[in-house]
Amino acid sequence: MKDKLIIFDTTLRDGEQSPGASMTRDEKLRIARQLERMRVDVIEAGFAAASNGDFEAVRSIAEAIKESTVCTLARANEHDIRRAGEAIRPAARGRIHTFIATSPIHMEKKLRMTPDQVVEQAVKAIGWAREYTDDVEFSAEDAGRSEIDFLVRIFEAVIDAGAKTINVPDTVGYNVPEQFAATVRTLIERVPNSDKVVWSVHCHNDLGLAVANSLAAVRSGARQVECTINGLGERAGNASLEEIVMAVRTRADIFPVETGIETTQIVPASKLVSQITGYPVQPNKAIVGANAFAHESGIHQDGVLKHRETYEIMRAEDVGWGANKLVLGKLSGRNAFRARLQELGIEIESEDHLNQAFARFKELADRKSEIFDEDLTALMRDEAVTPAPEQYRLVSTRFHSETGETPVAEITLSIGGAEKQARANGSGPVDAAFKAIETVATTGSELLLYSVNAITSGTDAQGEVTVRLSRDGRVMDGQGADTDIIVASAKAYLNALNKLHAGAERLNPQV
Amino acid sequence: MKDKLIIFDTTLRDGEQSPGASMTRDEKLRIARQLERMRVDVIEAGFAAASNGDFEAVRSIAEAIKESTVCTLARANEHDIRRAGEAIRPAARGRIHTFIATSPIHMEKKLRMTPDQVVEQAVKAIGWAREYTDDVEFSAEDAGRSEIDFLVRIFEAVIDAGAKTINVPDTVGYNVPEQFAATVRTLIERVPNSDKVVWSVHCHNDLGLAVANSLAAVRSGARQVECTINGLGERAGNASLEEIVMAVRTRADIFPVETGIETTQIVPASKLVSQITGYPVQPNKAIVGANAFAHESGIHQDGVLKHRETYEIMRAEDVGWGANKLVLGKLSGRNAFRARLQELGIEIESEDHLNQAFARFKELADRKSEIFDEDLTALMRDEAVTPAPEQYRLVSTRFHSETGETPVAEITLSIGGAEKQARANGSGPVDAAFKAIETVATTGSELLLYSVNAITSGTDAQGEVTVRLSRDGRVMDGQGADTDIIVASAKAYLNALNKLHAGAERLNPQV
Repeated sequence: MKDKLIIFDTTLRDGEQSPGASMTRDEKLRIARQLERMRVDVIEAGFAAASNGDFEAVRSIAEAIKESTVCTLARANEHDIRRAGEAIRPAARGRIHTFIATSPIHMEKKLRMTPDQVVEQAVKAIGWAREYTDDVEFSAEDAGRSEIDFLVRIFEAVIDAGAKTINVPDTVGYNVPEQFAATVRTLIERVPNSDKVVWSVHCHNDLGLAVANSLAAVRSGARQVECTINGLGERAGNASLEEIVMAVRTRADIFPVETGIETTQIVPASKLVSQITGYPVQPNKAIVGANAFAHESGIHQDGVLKHRETYEIMRAEDVGWGANKLVLGKLSGRNAFRARLQELGIEIESEDHLNQAFARFKELADRKSEIFDEDLTALMRDEAVTPAPEQYRLVSTRFHSETGETPVAEITLSIGGAEKQARANGSGPVDAAFKAIETVATTGSELLLYSVNAITSGTDAQGEVTVRLSRDGRVMDGQGADTDIIVASAKAYLNALNKLHAGAERLNPQV
Repeated sequence: MKDKLIIFDTTLRDGEQSPGASMTRDEKLRIARQLERMRVDVIEAGFAAASNGDFEAVRSIAEAIKESTVCTLARANEHDIRRAGEAIRPAARGRIHTFIATSPIHMEKKLRMTPDQVVEQAVKAIGWAREYTDDVEFSAEDAGRSEIDFLVRIFEAVIDAGAKTINVPDTVGYNVPEQFAATVRTLIERVPNSDKVVWSVHCHNDLGLAVANSLAAVRSGARQVECTINGLGERAGNASLEEIVMAVRTRADIFPVETGIETTQIVPASKLVSQITGYPVQPNKAIVGANAFAHESGIHQDGVLKHRETYEIMRAEDVGWGANKLVLGKLSGRNAFRARLQELGIEIESEDHLNQAFARFKELADRKSEIFDEDLTALMRDEAVTPAPEQYRLVSTRFHSETGETPVAEITLSIGGAEKQARANGSGPVDAAFKAIETVATTGSELLLYSVNAITSGTDAQGEVTVRLSRDGRVMDGQGADTDIIVASAKAYLNALNKLHAGAERLNPQV
């Protein structure tokens, strides 16, 4: 029998550290439920000590998730670890993942600690963590640029202290496969009691090698891979979960391991993460890109169909393409609506909440003939984004543009409960809408990024708009969906303003 | 001194085979000029025998490009090779790249030839090609799934026949690095006279391993890598040029080769290809993604700035981020405009052409305070997309939408020279615009994809819209840019219709 490869998903922690990808507690819960459905072994739910919001999100996930281990990150200090321990307390299986930097440059410039102090601190951290759970993981930050003798020393010490998983991150994405494989092999050979722990890797993609480095490490004995949906993560992101899982499965002749992942949940997970974070997936992305499987990209050329098996190494169905596309229409009833939401893992908090959502569904169905899962997800995200009273809310809109005239937008907003009207001209209707909003909201935000994707095909598709705003050095993405692209744009802008209004500062650890 | 690694770019051939990424001759020329500026060694300019349009495009590139070798693909038959030979005749340095499938499944099911026949055909192909040039490359299609003994036999035969480059493609992206490296090493060891030729690899990214496989082959002795800008290409695409080049450069301690690439041209090349093909680059893409370098993504957090060198393995400037952002404004004159176009490699065919373009530039500058390189590129693409009389052209538009009412669009089109007016309601203004167009154009096209990206930041940015239409089994992407997103959408729709109207069928070889 093959060894199990443990899939450790860090979309909710390292993925969330992507600029503007901050998620609300409810959004994180929905992604966590999808990860559980996909049978991810370990869900890294966040960095509990980063803020009260992060703590609450980790705790909610620990309460809700039964099948996967719920993990939270903590720096190697007592405060972080006690917050982590509290956050995972409700979990059926909880893990604390603590880390400290071990490369000369990081120890000297960032930590300002000697190697002896770093070892001592790491051992203490394991001790604090074990007061809460036996499942403790230790990471040597920037291991890829650390001295091998020092890694052997610190890993021996934390294993003696009770760490059960030893993670070797390539924090800055500097490694190449053969060399990274050699590092992991050497560590497993040299660290005393290395057979008592699971060896793990965490690779970044700065040179495009995160997946290859992870897989090379697996061939050297690593039995856990840390990865994210769509390869999300800081800078060029982390190793893609979908590529790791499908490479191991497709090349079962080469890899000595198997995962427990339910692969048909991969594409739904990819779409959910893309929708919630506003990060698009490029069409030529492996596995989850719109073109990854030729016959899914709208092309039905003779050559492709005739020689399908000649070019196909995976089946699109096996990763969840094409399943459950059309779900509801104008005549669907309340029960069908509720049942589909449950299948999508969307929580309904109360009958009131269901009634409101159903009313919006009916309104959408009046404008759009076919309602797809993606539409429901967007609809419910709109509902759920800010369950607390919103500071900024769109009341009504009016737009006009005509060749030879300057486009104009009239917008009625509710700001802190008070209705305000504004009118502005712009270089286009979206520009006019944003200017009208700023006329009354006067936040002084700067627009950094604007993008739109149709959620489904067809001219009556909903446009999903992502707006990235910057204010006082903070950056936030907002999303909005509507069949009217200008309304969707205004909603996205207000969503980003609401997040900027609500959000507290967070810490972004680098692992 | 290190060996030279030859960078062979196939954006214009394999990249163009991405669904909907078809480019006009002028678009291809602009990309070819950028590749030359970047000092790509070999530009695969197209598949000359695919259609007359493809032939003309290859020939124009062969005429225009002086510094790079211009290559064209040809199946191993006399007709293809003679077309290829004619197409590259004007080149300062021309190459013919011929290929035939060598895997049992392809020889049996696709070619219906015996192995003996395949070898004989390959040798004949080299002979025909050498009538036109000494620079002949041979590819064994699906080499990754071919028998090694047969590869040794066919490679020996084509080297004897005069092939100068031997390419080993992983056509279906099935290989993993260690194994692919071993295949290339074995071939170089076993093929007689292997030291007389350059060994090349061409990897696809279906499992996310194209870059890693290419780099592993380089460590086994390959000295040419075939790759594309942004990893464009069929399905999950090809190896990314930018990742290959920057991995070799950043890890000069490991790779025994160096490239001649002018790396500061990488980001401009990425943006040009993305704009022309309408294929977005995801923010978390290595090297060329908007987030790849933290300080370029709009984030200026203390931590990042303080510890910049701690996390930085490449410098954003070295790959062309941040250079030449702001170029022209409202007060810029005709000479400054012309000079900037020349620097961007955009050809001005005549004074008339320049006057028209300058008038459009002035009109844009009235609506938009700062004109960036990206705006100029979009503006000139609009000009250049169809220099021939267009079947469909936008004359004027009028849109109105208001909360509680159905959005309405009124559009005046010129169809084959005759003006027609139409009015339609829709679920949003874009839907209404597309429906109005179809009311009079009645093409019956189906919308497969709709996306928008702001070309630059700021609320007055131009929106660049990509529309993918399908009609009678053919698929085409259209692009349109305008500060008014609905006008940009209508232009993109008409651009796709024009391409569907003009386009002939093409062959898409699989290498």
